Amino acid sequence: MKTEIITIGDELLIGQTTDTNSQWMASHLSNHGIRVNRITSLPDELEVIVQELNQAATRSQVVLVTGGLGPTRDDVTRRAITRFFEVEWKMNPDVYRRLEHYLAQRGYGVSELNRDQAKTPEGARVFINPVGTAPAMGLQSQGCRFYFMPGVPPEMRAMMVSAILPELKKQGNSKYYEYKILITQGLPEAHLAEKLKEYEGQLPTHLMLAYLPSEGLVRLRLSGRHADRQRLSRDLEQWLSRLKELIFHYIVHMGDQSLEQLIGQMLVERNQSLATGESCTGGTIAGRITSVAGSSRYFKGSVVAYSNPVKMCMLEVSRSTLELHGAVSQQVVEEMARGTQKAFQCDYAISVSGIAGPGGGTAHKSVGTTWIAVAGPEKIQTRRFHFGRDRELNIRKAANTALVMLKRLISDEI
Amino acid sequence: MKTEIITIGDELLIGQTTDTNSQWMASHLSNHGIRVNRITSLPDELEVIVQELNQAATRSQVVLVTGGLGPTRDDVTRRAITRFFEVEWKMNPDVYRRLEHYLAQRGYGVSELNRDQAKTPEGARVFINPVGTAPAMGLQSQGCRFYFMPGVPPEMRAMMVSAILPELKKQGNSKYYEYKILITQGLPEAHLAEKLKEYEGQLPTHLMLAYLPSEGLVRLRLSGRHADRQRLSRDLEQWLSRLKELIFHYIVHMGDQSLEQLIGQMLVERNQSLATGESCTGGTIAGRITSVAGSSRYFKGSVVAYSNPVKMCMLEVSRSTLELHGAVSQQVVEEMARGTQKAFQCDYAISVSGIAGPGGGTAHKSVGTTWIAVAGPEKIQTRRFHFGRDRELNIRKAANTALVMLKRLISDEI
Repeated sequence: MKTEIITIGDELLIGQTTDTNSQWMASHLSNHGIRVNRITSLPDELEVIVQELNQAATRSQVVLVTGGLGPTRDDVTRRAITRFFEVEWKMNPDVYRRLEHYLAQRGYGVSELNRDQAKTPEGARVFINPVGTAPAMGLQSQGCRFYFMPGVPPEMRAMMVSAILPELKKQGNSKYYEYKILITQGLPEAHLAEKLKEYEGQLPTHLMLAYLPSEGLVRLRLSGRHADRQRLSRDLEQWLSRLKELIFHYIVHMGDQSLEQLIGQMLVERNQSLATGESCTGGTIAGRITSVAGSSRYFKGSVVAYSNPVKMCMLEVSRSTLELHGAVSQQVVEEMARGTQKAFQCDYAISVSGIAGPGGGTAHKSVGTTWIAVAGPEKIQTRRFHFGRDRELNIRKAANTALVMLKRLISDEI
Repeated sequence: MKTEIITIGDELLIGQTTDTNSQWMASHLSNHGIRVNRITSLPDELEVIVQELNQAATRSQVVLVTGGLGPTRDDVTRRAITRFFEVEWKMNPDVYRRLEHYLAQRGYGVSELNRDQAKTPEGARVFINPVGTAPAMGLQSQGCRFYFMPGVPPEMRAMMVSAILPELKKQGNSKYYEYKILITQGLPEAHLAEKLKEYEGQLPTHLMLAYLPSEGLVRLRLSGRHADRQRLSRDLEQWLSRLKELIFHYIVHMGDQSLEQLIGQMLVERNQSLATGESCTGGTIAGRITSVAGSSRYFKGSVVAYSNPVKMCMLEVSRSTLELHGAVSQQVVEEMARGTQKAFQCDYAISVSGIAGPGGGTAHKSVGTTWIAVAGPEKIQTRRFHFGRDRELNIRKAANTALVMLKRLISDEI
């Protein structure tokens, strides 16, 4: 079942918006065993869209399209549907009622443009939008099934989850797809690959190893595709355990869980708690930890100490330590970690102090210099890093590294 | 000059990674007056890549390709180059020296796989990678120019900025592209469009208005394309000011600046300071504020108060207020804002308390219920919102809304 994604909108082509819809759809399709063969982003141009729908129909069996269904003039996907499928649009009473109800709840009436949104193509299957106004539509051409969805991410997601994914899953696949993720730290991609050269050479042809370097970590994805599901799972497990033996010391963790999910799970199991004291990461680590549902069970909070007085008042860093060693130092970051544990009465603390850049570097401490401490009930571990010159990247690398350090500390204290 | 982007990597097609490279390139090309006509993401499959290079050569004059240049087996773009351009690879002494130096700095030797990375195709123009190991390469076929870059974002960015963008810019364009952004809040997309129907009908054909709803805001993009740059700028300005008059009350701000950049600029100009006291947003607002370079000039810090004891100890929320009204209430969020101002000795404070979900809702306070307060030297403003049921979205909407409220409060206090 060849499947592709088409996302429509000038905002994608001028780089104003990142195409997160494709990533979300690809990830969910992949988890349902459906392989995506290509993703295409197109401008709001009628001719271009119609032409691509034509091409897609010849090369795929399923085409998922998002964007351009809004009520405004710049949204041309509806016109492309008219042209390509040669259909007429009729008022759909179900969609209209839903629209009326949705707007009434928010204190609005149905505008003329909204009314147009309640029209759907004759012969189309219609999926009511549970969180917005534009419905999704299913149409066929040349044996290829098209699904058109609005581009607003929560609306697309709601209809994918409730209707479209289950429908696609039912059609089944001739081959199953499965993968395992290992997150590693401590060896650059090429050196890791050198270590795994022989292993890769021996992999059966239905398995594949990929290297995905990202912000201080290298993720390894061992994936496979096979008609026999049981055999695929068995082979993956077997080759995964060989892989783990070969690079044991560099593995941070396994699986699709994020570092913050994994840490959350460990803390819940141990009934322990966590807080952060952040300088240069500015709340990013707290933000990642609290992105996990249920994090209030173990996360006490954070102090973002962006100035020395705050470090002193709220995290009990001593004035003399700050004067003697400077804010970006082992001593300060350790006092911050201890101060965070004390202020939040928690078992574990992460603290970070660094020069994210682009300004703030000195002859002795260049931009990117970052101290990270993780403190537990027993131990405290502190390390200095030299990240790069890019502010955004430095913050993300510091956050990733701090979470890796914390994960290791918690594991050590079993 | 028809330009397109191709990004390569299985991680994109299985949704493990979001394609931020395309967004970055599209945005920078667009700022240089170069319009991107399509973006395609392809898997690490030799045949598929070669076929797409062929198609791209027939429909575009410039093709920017990222990904698949790494040293490992799963990276097949190098093989696709060999096949499509029919070239041989030779050791490149400049690239080799750079590689040796780069690895030595990090305490590594040159591995055999790295050595392969120092080979470049005969006849290719080579761009040294200032922040990594794989160089970028320029090649021609059928009058179409291809640029191949590594997929690691900072490496791609470095070579785009230093070499490829300036080169593309020099070739000039027959038409200039320019756009203006207005960020609005308070009217849904369709109602905004209804208000602007007549205006849109009168727009000259070389101008266009687009609606981009996102997390509680609607961004409007007025864009134009014209051979005469001066005329384009003049027309845009003129139609922009008409647009501003029509929806004056809903405009939050103008321009490509993010809300956090705008707020930063306003605070610097006024020499005033800011801190946040966050509950359900968990440091996300602080993270956004500190993502701006130079934010240490006005941002004092944040307390993420994820539990009631922390709200009491660090932000001086009184026990009786918490007991009487609950943590998600007007009274508590106001005390949090005042407590934040006091704790950080700052002019402005943002505070947020809500139920991000998916758990935590009650009969009286459903998931999504969020109180936000912004406090200034004079006034305090508090509002209750009902966002939705999606945790991630609730956090982002709360952050956006809080920044909008703060921006308005600062503007009011001129």
